[in-house]
Amino acid sequence: MVRFVDVPNMRRWLIDTGIEPAISGIAETIASDFIRWQDFDKTARVASHSDIGVIELMPASDGRQYGFKYVNGHPSNPARGMQTVTAFGVLADVDSGYPTLWTEMTILTALRTAATSAMVARVLAPADATTMAMIGTGSQAEFQALAFRALLGIDRLRVWDTDPRALDVFEENMRPLGFDILRANSAAEAVAGAHIITTCTADKANATVLTDDMVVPGVHINAIGGDCPGKTELDARILPRGDIFVEYPPQTRIEGEIQQLDAEHPITELWQVLRGEAAGRTSDEQITVFDSVGFAIEDFSALRYLAAAIDGTDYFTEVDIIAEPADPKNLFALVAQGAAAPSLA
Amino acid sequence: MVRFVDVPNMRRWLIDTGIEPAISGIAETIASDFIRWQDFDKTARVASHSDIGVIELMPASDGRQYGFKYVNGHPSNPARGMQTVTAFGVLADVDSGYPTLWTEMTILTALRTAATSAMVARVLAPADATTMAMIGTGSQAEFQALAFRALLGIDRLRVWDTDPRALDVFEENMRPLGFDILRANSAAEAVAGAHIITTCTADKANATVLTDDMVVPGVHINAIGGDCPGKTELDARILPRGDIFVEYPPQTRIEGEIQQLDAEHPITELWQVLRGEAAGRTSDEQITVFDSVGFAIEDFSALRYLAAAIDGTDYFTEVDIIAEPADPKNLFALVAQGAAAPSLA
Repeated sequence: MVRFVDVPNMRRWLIDTGIEPAISGIAETIASDFIRWQDFDKTARVASHSDIGVIELMPASDGRQYGFKYVNGHPSNPARGMQTVTAFGVLADVDSGYPTLWTEMTILTALRTAATSAMVARVLAPADATTMAMIGTGSQAEFQALAFRALLGIDRLRVWDTDPRALDVFEENMRPLGFDILRANSAAEAVAGAHIITTCTADKANATVLTDDMVVPGVHINAIGGDCPGKTELDARILPRGDIFVEYPPQTRIEGEIQQLDAEHPITELWQVLRGEAAGRTSDEQITVFDSVGFAIEDFSALRYLAAAIDGTDYFTEVDIIAEPADPKNLFALVAQGAAAPSLA
Repeated sequence: MVRFVDVPNMRRWLIDTGIEPAISGIAETIASDFIRWQDFDKTARVASHSDIGVIELMPASDGRQYGFKYVNGHPSNPARGMQTVTAFGVLADVDSGYPTLWTEMTILTALRTAATSAMVARVLAPADATTMAMIGTGSQAEFQALAFRALLGIDRLRVWDTDPRALDVFEENMRPLGFDILRANSAAEAVAGAHIITTCTADKANATVLTDDMVVPGVHINAIGGDCPGKTELDARILPRGDIFVEYPPQTRIEGEIQQLDAEHPITELWQVLRGEAAGRTSDEQITVFDSVGFAIEDFSALRYLAAAIDGTDYFTEVDIIAEPADPKNLFALVAQGAAAPSLA
């Protein structure tokens, strides 16, 4: 039997745990997995593109456990009542090859993306940062805000979205939670005075939600939305002004903001910063850019965090997904009744 | 909600349907999908290897539906009561990116592998074939035998395995089903006089279960077990004597029997034979080799066959794996109770 966390159980687990504690726990798990980067079997995610979206598989293994996520990205889904991103994930035992956990991962992905952003900002953002600008207040926005409060103490938000309704929803969700929120009238107004700039928009296009003139020395840019070939958010002129930090270069080169740059443009791998083997922020004037695309190890970390968190609880059910004949070499015995001798008719 | 076929429902469906009818249906679906080969987004499977096994993801899409299979291969599993191969699969809607079906696929893989072998043999084996030698009578063997009877009318089997217990199990399973079975004392004895030779062994090694001297002109070789880098079954000298037919060259070159040959050695793609664009068997003396490794389109075909077969039946349940907030841009609303303002304590 395989443990199964459906949407109701995920909701129940997260509400009981608390979003900020869950994000903090996932962030520490991601950091600890990035620090043992060399232990992992890594691969760029496998994407299947169609005219209106993408479906991706994201596997990773540390040699003891194997995990993968299925995730889609369909920016036109909300217009017909569906979500842009949905996901589910599986954890398996490398020793036997048998799956051990199957879980909804739409909610868990929101947590892990936010956890990764905040974990990275903790090492790259200005130490005295108090204010974050957010361009794009869709489904990921609230989780980003909570992650940055949980890990960095950020409680001042300056928000902007081209869709006023998305801003309404964000404000309604977040006002009761103790944030100081400025609703801007433009991206430029949102960004003014912020120490951290988070861009998180869904349009699958080479968009420019942040222009070069909006970016002043010293800021940390948390660029989340550019995560697919042909999908970027930043004015390409911003990039050479800063130091660029990435998850897994073979994937980011084709999916991230740096798809706009020469393939040789210098970048720094985050795992090296976390291990102290590469520099992160080195001056108050430095512009740091986290060119986030989302990497499979982050999902692996979220899966193993969840697996440990639900152990011994009732936040899961069990599903019978592994055929187990009494004799492992006699699979046929399970279905022998479906075979018959030819009739003599 | 996503349809879910667990092991009990798969068994019930297969027993009620009958193994031979199910294999025939899957074989026709695979053939029809191979014939529209150019419609598919294809990729070699993504493998994660460990010292004792492999875990693979096998995606394929025809632009309308997307499918993938998770499958492991752990040859040492049976010694500890577990199966060498287990699998599950998912079908999804390309237009929305939402999954539509989640199913056990250990049993379904056994059906699709057998269906593929027989479908291929139907175009490559001698027209008057009545007798098949089988080297390796593990979990796949009974399904192979039933597939060759269903599609080619083969009812004489000459079987050999290094494990006498595997032969016992096979004989017990198959004798009641109307087959004429000769239990051989060696691979050479099994092969003598057979029109078709099926090799299906699990050892992850460059093994030689079929030697050059055992192969006479005119036979069709259905080589199933060599399906992984470092895992082969055929004496390399057999290969240049025959015409070699493969599923998807980029995958077979690294996984199949032809990993033993020069990367330029000529091969024929099966889809071209099925479309009449390349020759299959052209003479009575020709040795034909199906260098089978298992390709994602076969799983896709099996998934879509199953999805159609269970529609309107009770062979599935439903699972709540897609988080669906009332407002698709407000995922946070599903878990807002898990967020709280900082306490004033």
